[in-house]
Amino acid sequence: MKISEASVQAGVSIPTFKYYLREGLVQPGERLSTNQTAYDDTHVQRVRLVRALIETGGLSIAAAKRVLATLDSGTPLAYTFEAAQHALAVGGAGAVAAQPDSLARIGALTASHAWAVTPENPGANVAARALDALAAIGFTPSDEYLDAYASAASTIAHADLTALTTRSRPELIAELMVVGTVLGDALIAGLRRLAQENATADLFPADAGTDRKDAS
Amino acid sequence: MKISEASVQAGVSIPTFKYYLREGLVQPGERLSTNQTAYDDTHVQRVRLVRALIETGGLSIAAAKRVLATLDSGTPLAYTFEAAQHALAVGGAGAVAAQPDSLARIGALTASHAWAVTPENPGANVAARALDALAAIGFTPSDEYLDAYASAASTIAHADLTALTTRSRPELIAELMVVGTVLGDALIAGLRRLAQENATADLFPADAGTDRKDAS
Repeated sequence: MKISEASVQAGVSIPTFKYYLREGLVQPGERLSTNQTAYDDTHVQRVRLVRALIETGGLSIAAAKRVLATLDSGTPLAYTFEAAQHALAVGGAGAVAAQPDSLARIGALTASHAWAVTPENPGANVAARALDALAAIGFTPSDEYLDAYASAASTIAHADLTALTTRSRPELIAELMVVGTVLGDALIAGLRRLAQENATADLFPADAGTDRKDAS
Repeated sequence: MKISEASVQAGVSIPTFKYYLREGLVQPGERLSTNQTAYDDTHVQRVRLVRALIETGGLSIAAAKRVLATLDSGTPLAYTFEAAQHALAVGGAGAVAAQPDSLARIGALTASHAWAVTPENPGANVAARALDALAAIGFTPSDEYLDAYASAASTIAHADLTALTTRSRPELIAELMVVGTVLGDALIAGLRRLAQENATADLFPADAGTDRKDAS
């Protein structure tokens, strides 16, 4: 198909499609003549994937490239999550080393939950950097707070892994590992906002005088 | 104190401190003479907060400005979460409307968990956009998958709200609401990476021949 049709199917503009091609995020089409290039369903699928990572996952072009390289390199499934996690950590909160105290606290947390994790997992630094930043506003989370987060993480990870078993082909499993790593963060962030609203009304009721919600 | 000392205390370079001042992210110091301006602990605290939002929370300057405006405007606590959530959603995944199907699915999910949420909560669109993006790679999450995420979100939100009760002054509560909204996302993302590694080893064991971990 022509790039115009492929763009429509992928849900992007032609300039965006061309931009992804130029950046090497999408494989080149088949050159039929000097002014005609053919694209197929694999291109449409790939553009959708790139769009999901960038627009919804909030990844930079550079981060999307690193994450996709993980997929394209045919990394064994045992290491796909790990490779995707490292690709995401570069340049993000994982780029700066957290304070030793915070890293030790995250280490103690994973140990208390008996998680088998390697010291290289970039998640430890990302989580510890969050503790550093909370400390900067004078907030030291209680053990109960961190336990709640760890339990929630465990619940999500279990769902993530179970979802992988619904896919049969290794490349589809790898795709979901990589994309799910990015989009699961967005999904839990959105649901957390909703759950917070539900919980806030109980703890911090609006004054009757300043209530902006209609009684209904 | 001088800007040099305030910068050291806040953990940023002098150019970064000046950049935050120019961008209006930090309130001006007290002008003592034409070439001397005094800063105090409130400036140090504010720079730490800005740094946490930008470096660890991954916010853009524009998003940090919107979030901080929420704090500075003295929004009643009943609406601080809501205001912070809207400030974060602008320009992010909340900026593009999700597909009606995905929004309906998130609506059904919150209803099944009996969450009291308003239609304006931007979390619904963020979560629905994640479903859109997962659909783009042919993955439709099961009800069990979404229930697991919703349960995790509820666990986290409960911990978030409980943490607020440890702070006494309204401005400190508001600060933690705003900063915690941003940094909690980083904390759960990091812990999720760790929990995934723990769960992956069971489901996708490395082949003996390609095992990169030493037996120990």
